Amino acid sequence: MAKKVLIVYAHQSSGSFNAAAKNAAVEVLTAQGCTVDVSDLYAMGFKATATAEDIKGEVKNAENFCYLEESKLAWEQGKLSADIMEEQSKLTVADLIIFQFPMYWFSVPAILKGWIDRVLTNGFAFSQEKRYSQGIFKDKKAMLSFTTGSLESMFSPTGINGDMNVTLWPLQNGILHYCGFQVLAPQIFWAPSSAVAEDRKSMLESWRTRLQGLLEEKPLSFISLDCFDDKAFQLKPEVHEKHASKEFGLTVGIHLNKPLPPHSQMKAGC
Amino acid sequence: MAKKVLIVYAHQSSGSFNAAAKNAAVEVLTAQGCTVDVSDLYAMGFKATATAEDIKGEVKNAENFCYLEESKLAWEQGKLSADIMEEQSKLTVADLIIFQFPMYWFSVPAILKGWIDRVLTNGFAFSQEKRYSQGIFKDKKAMLSFTTGSLESMFSPTGINGDMNVTLWPLQNGILHYCGFQVLAPQIFWAPSSAVAEDRKSMLESWRTRLQGLLEEKPLSFISLDCFDDKAFQLKPEVHEKHASKEFGLTVGIHLNKPLPPHSQMKAGC
Repeated sequence: MAKKVLIVYAHQSSGSFNAAAKNAAVEVLTAQGCTVDVSDLYAMGFKATATAEDIKGEVKNAENFCYLEESKLAWEQGKLSADIMEEQSKLTVADLIIFQFPMYWFSVPAILKGWIDRVLTNGFAFSQEKRYSQGIFKDKKAMLSFTTGSLESMFSPTGINGDMNVTLWPLQNGILHYCGFQVLAPQIFWAPSSAVAEDRKSMLESWRTRLQGLLEEKPLSFISLDCFDDKAFQLKPEVHEKHASKEFGLTVGIHLNKPLPPHSQMKAGC
Repeated sequence: MAKKVLIVYAHQSSGSFNAAAKNAAVEVLTAQGCTVDVSDLYAMGFKATATAEDIKGEVKNAENFCYLEESKLAWEQGKLSADIMEEQSKLTVADLIIFQFPMYWFSVPAILKGWIDRVLTNGFAFSQEKRYSQGIFKDKKAMLSFTTGSLESMFSPTGINGDMNVTLWPLQNGILHYCGFQVLAPQIFWAPSSAVAEDRKSMLESWRTRLQGLLEEKPLSFISLDCFDDKAFQLKPEVHEKHASKEFGLTVGIHLNKPLPPHSQMKAGC
C-alpha cells in the first residue's frame, strides 16, 4: 500500500537550502507513490506557544493552569484548538514524519518546538504506560533532517561543539523515541551556507539517493521499555549485569558510566 | 555595587510551582540588595517565532531570507523590532540571568526557545571570534532553574530518560556557554507535581537557601577556547595528549570517547 509521509518544515524562505531539501523529499517520495503532506510552519503562521487558547471553552483549573493536564483533558473531550487537531490528524495517518529545519542553538527553531509542545499532546502522543518502545507511534517512523551552521569537525567528541550524538539525544530519544517512533538516522547537511554551490548540489543529490530507500531503512537502536523496572524506571539488575563486560554504554543517555557507543544517534546498527 | 538580575520566566500560571520559584528568587535577591527584573514571557505575549517581522523596514534579501544574517544586519543598524531590543537592553545591564521554566520535551518550552532564538542575535550575543570562553557575556552569569515531570532516578545514567547531564549539554554548552556566560549549576525541581505539599515546600526552601549565596557560587567547568585550533576547531594535540591518561572525558560533549565526567553539567568542580 502507498505510504503516507508528513514533512514538518520550518524555514522562512522558499529560496533556502532547507526548502530545497524539503522539495527533494516531496519529489522523490511522491515519485515512489507515497502521499506526501507538508506542514509549512512559517507559511501557516503556526502558533508556537502553549497557552490556554489551545483549549476550546473553559479550562478545568484557571487559577493553577497546567498545560500538560489541561491539554490532555481537552484532547479527550475533543476540545483542542483546530490548528492542533489538524496537525494531529495528519500525524495519525502518516507512516513517516520528516522534520526539516535549520538547527538553531543546538536544537530545533522555536516554531518547530511549538509544534512538538502543542501537537504531541499527553494522551494523544504518549501516556504513562505507552511510551518509548511501547509508545503510541511505534508503528510509525520519524527522522530529523537539518542544516547546521558549524562544520562537521566541530561536532565531534574532540571538536569545540562536542559530539553531535550528545546534542541529538534529547531530540531523538526524548521526543521521537519517547512517543514510540522508530527513529531513522538523521540527515545532516553540514554547513551548507559555508559550502560552494557544487558541494551544496552534491549534498542534495545524496539526500535524493537516500530518499529512494528511506522507507526500508533500519532505525536507530534504543533500549526496550521492559529492560527497566516499573517503579523507579531503573535498568533491571539482570540487564545491567548482562552488559557489565561490554566496552560501551547502552545508549548516549543510558551510558552506565562507560564510553558512549560511537555514532549511535547518527547511524543504525551502532 | 548592587547586582542586577534578569529572570526570564516561562509559565502560564501565577499559581504554579514555577511562579513560586520565580517569586522566591525575586524576594531573596531583592532582600540582598539586587535589582531584579522579570521577563514574564506568557504575560508579555512574547513572540516566539523568528520571522522577517523582527526586522524594521526592508530586509536585505527577501528572496532568500536568512534569519541569522538579516538579524545580525538589523542589530548593527538598530533595526531590530522593539520587543527584541527591549530584552537585549535588560540582558546588557544584567549580571545574572535566571531562566525559570518547566522542562517540556527534554528542553525549554517553545516560548523560551523563541526568546533564545530572537534575543541572542548574531553580533549582539556572539560572533565567530567571540564565543565560548571568549564569549561576549563572559562577565555575566546564567543558570537554568526548572521543574521536571519525571523523577530524579529516571534521569540517571541507568534510568529510562538517560543521564540529565546529557540532556543539559545542548542548553548549557550550546546556548549559555556559547555566549560566554559563566554557567551556574542548574536548580532542578524534580517532579514537584508528583510530590506532597510538604516536599514542594522544602524544595522551595532549599532554593531560597541557595539563592542567599548564588552570586558567589563557582560556575560549571567548560574548556577554554584556546584549547582548540582555529581552523577545524579540534582539540589541540598537546591538550589531547595531556589528557590521554585521564579516566574521564573533558566534558559531556567533548568526551574523547571516554566515560563522561560525572555530574559535570549539574555541579561545579566536576
